[in-house]
Amino acid sequence: MTRLGILTSGGDCPGINAVIRGAVLKGAISYGYEFAGFRDGWRGVLECDFIPLDRPAVRGLSRLGGTILGTSRTNPMNDGGIEAVRESLQFAGVDGLVAIGGEGTLAAAQEFSHAGIRVVGVPKTIDNDLDATDVSFGFDTAVQTATEAIDRLRTTGESHHRCMIAEVMGRNAGWIALHAGMASGAHAILIPEHRVSTRQVARWVESAHHRGRAPLVVVAEAFVPEGREAPYSPRGLDTFGRPRLGGIGLLLEHELQELTGIETRATVLGHIQRGGAPTAFDRVLATRMGMKAVASAAEGRWGTMVSLRGTSIVNVGLGAALGRLKTVPEDRYREAAVLFG
Amino acid sequence: MTRLGILTSGGDCPGINAVIRGAVLKGAISYGYEFAGFRDGWRGVLECDFIPLDRPAVRGLSRLGGTILGTSRTNPMNDGGIEAVRESLQFAGVDGLVAIGGEGTLAAAQEFSHAGIRVVGVPKTIDNDLDATDVSFGFDTAVQTATEAIDRLRTTGESHHRCMIAEVMGRNAGWIALHAGMASGAHAILIPEHRVSTRQVARWVESAHHRGRAPLVVVAEAFVPEGREAPYSPRGLDTFGRPRLGGIGLLLEHELQELTGIETRATVLGHIQRGGAPTAFDRVLATRMGMKAVASAAEGRWGTMVSLRGTSIVNVGLGAALGRLKTVPEDRYREAAVLFG
Amino acid sequence: MTRLGILTSGGDCPGINAVIRGAVLKGAISYGYEFAGFRDGWRGVLECDFIPLDRPAVRGLSRLGGTILGTSRTNPMNDGGIEAVRESLQFAGVDGLVAIGGEGTLAAAQEFSHAGIRVVGVPKTIDNDLDATDVSFGFDTAVQTATEAIDRLRTTGESHHRCMIAEVMGRNAGWIALHAGMASGAHAILIPEHRVSTRQVARWVESAHHRGRAPLVVVAEAFVPEGREAPYSPRGLDTFGRPRLGGIGLLLEHELQELTGIETRATVLGHIQRGGAPTAFDRVLATRMGMKAVASAAEGRWGTMVSLRGTSIVNVGLGAALGRLKTVPEDRYREAAVLFG
Amino acid sequence: MTRLGILTSGGDCPGINAVIRGAVLKGAISYGYEFAGFRDGWRGVLECDFIPLDRPAVRGLSRLGGTILGTSRTNPMNDGGIEAVRESLQFAGVDGLVAIGGEGTLAAAQEFSHAGIRVVGVPKTIDNDLDATDVSFGFDTAVQTATEAIDRLRTTGESHHRCMIAEVMGRNAGWIALHAGMASGAHAILIPEHRVSTRQVARWVESAHHRGRAPLVVVAEAFVPEGREAPYSPRGLDTFGRPRLGGIGLLLEHELQELTGIETRATVLGHIQRGGAPTAFDRVLATRMGMKAVASAAEGRWGTMVSLRGTSIVNVGLGAALGRLKTVPEDRYREAAVLFG
Repeated sequence: MTRLGILTSGGDCPGINAVIRGAVLKGAISYGYEFAGFRDGWRGVLECDFIPLDRPAVRGLSRLGGTILGTSRTNPMNDGGIEAVRESLQFAGVDGLVAIGGEGTLAAAQEFSHAGIRVVGVPKTIDNDLDATDVSFGFDTAVQTATEAIDRLRTTGESHHRCMIAEVMGRNAGWIALHAGMASGAHAILIPEHRVSTRQVARWVESAHHRGRAPLVVVAEAFVPEGREAPYSPRGLDTFGRPRLGGIGLLLEHELQELTGIETRATVLGHIQRGGAPTAFDRVLATRMGMKAVASAAEGRWGTMVSLRGTSIVNVGLGAALGRLKTVPEDRYREAAVLFG
Repeated sequence: MTRLGILTSGGDCPGINAVIRGAVLKGAISYGYEFAGFRDGWRGVLECDFIPLDRPAVRGLSRLGGTILGTSRTNPMNDGGIEAVRESLQFAGVDGLVAIGGEGTLAAAQEFSHAGIRVVGVPKTIDNDLDATDVSFGFDTAVQTATEAIDRLRTTGESHHRCMIAEVMGRNAGWIALHAGMASGAHAILIPEHRVSTRQVARWVESAHHRGRAPLVVVAEAFVPEGREAPYSPRGLDTFGRPRLGGIGLLLEHELQELTGIETRATVLGHIQRGGAPTAFDRVLATRMGMKAVASAAEGRWGTMVSLRGTSIVNVGLGAALGRLKTVPEDRYREAAVLFG
Repeated sequence: MTRLGILTSGGDCPGINAVIRGAVLKGAISYGYEFAGFRDGWRGVLECDFIPLDRPAVRGLSRLGGTILGTSRTNPMNDGGIEAVRESLQFAGVDGLVAIGGEGTLAAAQEFSHAGIRVVGVPKTIDNDLDATDVSFGFDTAVQTATEAIDRLRTTGESHHRCMIAEVMGRNAGWIALHAGMASGAHAILIPEHRVSTRQVARWVESAHHRGRAPLVVVAEAFVPEGREAPYSPRGLDTFGRPRLGGIGLLLEHELQELTGIETRATVLGHIQRGGAPTAFDRVLATRMGMKAVASAAEGRWGTMVSLRGTSIVNVGLGAALGRLKTVPEDRYREAAVLFG
Repeated sequence: MTRLGILTSGGDCPGINAVIRGAVLKGAISYGYEFAGFRDGWRGVLECDFIPLDRPAVRGLSRLGGTILGTSRTNPMNDGGIEAVRESLQFAGVDGLVAIGGEGTLAAAQEFSHAGIRVVGVPKTIDNDLDATDVSFGFDTAVQTATEAIDRLRTTGESHHRCMIAEVMGRNAGWIALHAGMASGAHAILIPEHRVSTRQVARWVESAHHRGRAPLVVVAEAFVPEGREAPYSPRGLDTFGRPRLGGIGLLLEHELQELTGIETRATVLGHIQRGGAPTAFDRVLATRMGMKAVASAAEGRWGTMVSLRGTSIVNVGLGAALGRLKTVPEDRYREAAVLFG
């Protein structure tokens, strides 16, 4: 009987469990496959630590956030290497691998594939910054959660005549900020792809204020204002001097209040964006990607990853997601910026 | 100064207000346009009943369900005709029209366009059954609302060991049932595009029951079981003999309980699927479509409608949405049916 | 080692699982008790069908709707009787019973208690109609779910200038209608405790309509208009002539449209009100009640049930909940009726 | 015609608008009153800056977060004094005042009342720390919002085997932490009323970790660990040296990771807890309080405030809420602490 391994690597993301469920159900029902779920990403592969995944094991998973397999930062290239992975898979009786992960995992998967290990990739990034797929699962949930939180901030801003800043996720790309900002009617959306000065942000804030609005700024964590060298480090420093999330939100709170004289408050949405039950959109996308990954394995399309194109789930080469990030293009930013007004 | 008219026609749909807001803000800020919002769809056009739509008028609209302009069933071809519309628009000083509506409105828009009236269409259908766009706004909200409701039904089913049936919207196409059914892990999804017998449904229900699950059936309102002539009428009869929503859910409740001996309960989700605040996905899609509609007008692309292709909003001819419905293709149904197990 | 049995009987209700978790954790940690969870209510007791409930078994239960123990309509007085229950509990090695249920279960518990069987009750009613507790768990979730659904109906009503009717649960008492109606700003709230004629309802609807509002009516399933003999049966008839939920909503849809000439649409919220994750309020209330039930057992307060008084969980005699229903008092109805305008 | 003034003072809180709506509708319909809404709290009173509040002005307010009247930190005793308020109210033609606010506003109201100014108070505190009412509006929404966010954090903790910390509001009392912690199944709840050492917290964290759980800590912003002098200031310091929210969460993140070796992440929920649409519970409570405040005015019960006792809204003297805070009593903390296990 064919046995496929599944691993989930990197940061958690709503929809991972739906991928696992889709893969196992498709494999069990359409092909009679069995599945080994490696625990904690590549660590489980290298240590041959896995659990059997049958139909009862994946019950109800489509609406469960996180990953039941756990995850870790183990890097298979540094911590083991190709031969260790190959041996471990053989020992586990695994004929092929479904690797659910981000750029690092897909890059490793490509190397393994070149070395003859059978692997299919499923792109996972809450930031939506992997190329070669229209959208990745988890992104819709992050945007929805951020938007609901920002809706809440708005009523406080209006009651107190304050400027509210919401710092959202986005390490390299501003997709969450762009979409949550459009959805919540932000007066400024700040993303790493498009640097502007804090003076410019202050002008947008003042413009909204003059129109009688409570200014709302949505900023991606990796945004760096024009003319600064990110002295707060890309992710800021906490009160103990360690780098951490929240830097840019606090910086803007301080500078915008100085520049505009308007009382300003920042909220760092943080981890709530990546946890919890996925939206229906993400459940459907993730389920379809999991099913397609196993269908790809059954058809021998090793060395590929699954991808959304329009409304179809297709295969693309593993390399298609690598090399360059999918950042927000200038025309999408300009489209949104019209509304800053 | 250029003045555009806006009208919203047909059933309400989450995101209409975000289209209006996107159109007005884009027009006011980028082009200096002013806007006349016709009240209650084509009735307002024919009766020259409109309100001015400026920036303050569209504040906060992206998260508001329904349409602030109101809607009606007035058919401009029957109730007025081309010349009445032309005269009315001239009288209102309107240079061009943004028509937000379904197949009927887009067909009328096409006729008006052929007669020299300037019009741009925005496709609106909660059922997602208009061709020429990957997805229409409102659909994502309907699926999310249905999925949350079905998640609630599931816990009751499991506690009482019952079969639960959720009847969702879908007059001609089963998209809502397909997506909400996949998202909620349904054991059977019944859509008008793919007729199966109630005996087949009963087998799926029994199979889930034998695996220890509380069977869950998601059915589109327009589904007709194989071998029946829809004696309950496409939409069923209520206790007063009038046609109404809910027919197929009740029929299945009755027949599945008879066939399987499993206690069965149907819930008709009804209007809650089309009301309320849109999801972030729909707010972004609708805002972008509204902006694009006005940009199309500014560029003189009259006679087109806006459309989502992949991640881009593009123009297609008004005729592209007409003539045939976008129904669920067989491969999408088969993809989902694997999970019925 | 002391072993307590737990059973859940009657309709499911958000928070039952939180009661179970609170009881088991309190018993295991504070007293070293072990627990037997009887399956499907009194059926499990009579058939000695139970599962062990230890700490791992109750993980994560506070936010899970329904009951993991299952439920049934088995009546212990008819289907077994006192001696059968006594023998079964002895056979299971159970020293005392925590009975989570409605009026029927609490009445049975009282009889068992009089016969010397050790039992503590936890009142369970989604309708909030049990006397001797300020509020029962599950009610807050039902009101919240109904209110969110009614908020959605309102936008449709306003867009189409329709009168919207929401039929909510409430077999004997109108608490859900009263609270969901106040929370959603209904123009009429109809409850079984206070009969009014459909003509009066029509006047309220017309009054709201004349003020430019989309009339909103919230009606409890058991409401019977003044002057009628409930010919539709308390719960109406479906298209197959069987009694079912939905009767009064449909009747009102028909009659109000006739009387007012305003297009009217009814939605029967149905089972979604009793399923799904409990609100934080219900999780806290249910957890505290479960803990108190076990503390009561430890203190030998058999023959009592737990109850919310103000902000305290107290013990009252099992008889306190029996004999009469807690219906909506006239002053609470009048308080709400002011807002009908 | 009798004219009442309404003002909202201090931090915003879900339900304020429902109080305003309840007061205006009750006054207009039952007594024929008219209303003046002072803008931005006491500032509007002192500057005689008000808007008329009639029925159309309060449409749809029960589900709108924040306050449409705005708020400010103006202190009427410091910034104006009794005579300034008296003159302003006379100039505005106001016969009596409904003051919606926290301890400061209620204390001022009491002084004004002693000086012969007619005032009725409505207690407002998101922290639920005002005595003389079982619960204040806004608290339920804050707990619900915090609980939903913590549910999201939990899936991330479980996927990454991390300890997650959620810092919630609570300047002087730990009610939000207590309820959100119970509702989300926290392994430690830290409140200012009950100091424990970080070593004790570390033991709870390790205990949960050893049982295979992802430890979850819910901490009120004002908690100070035993043995510390709050060197981080009660509210911590941000990266610019200014006091701000978030101190204790970050401190615990640092110390618990040091003490336990378990990867730990803190999230400061911040302003999302006080904004947005109120829960149905808060809508009903706030509406009833607003109505009762006006009924109290009509009955001449000046110098009182409204209060929830059990399920009734009653009047208590304004002084009843002053003098001492309603903190979490020891038995409520112990009740919850059993579950830390």
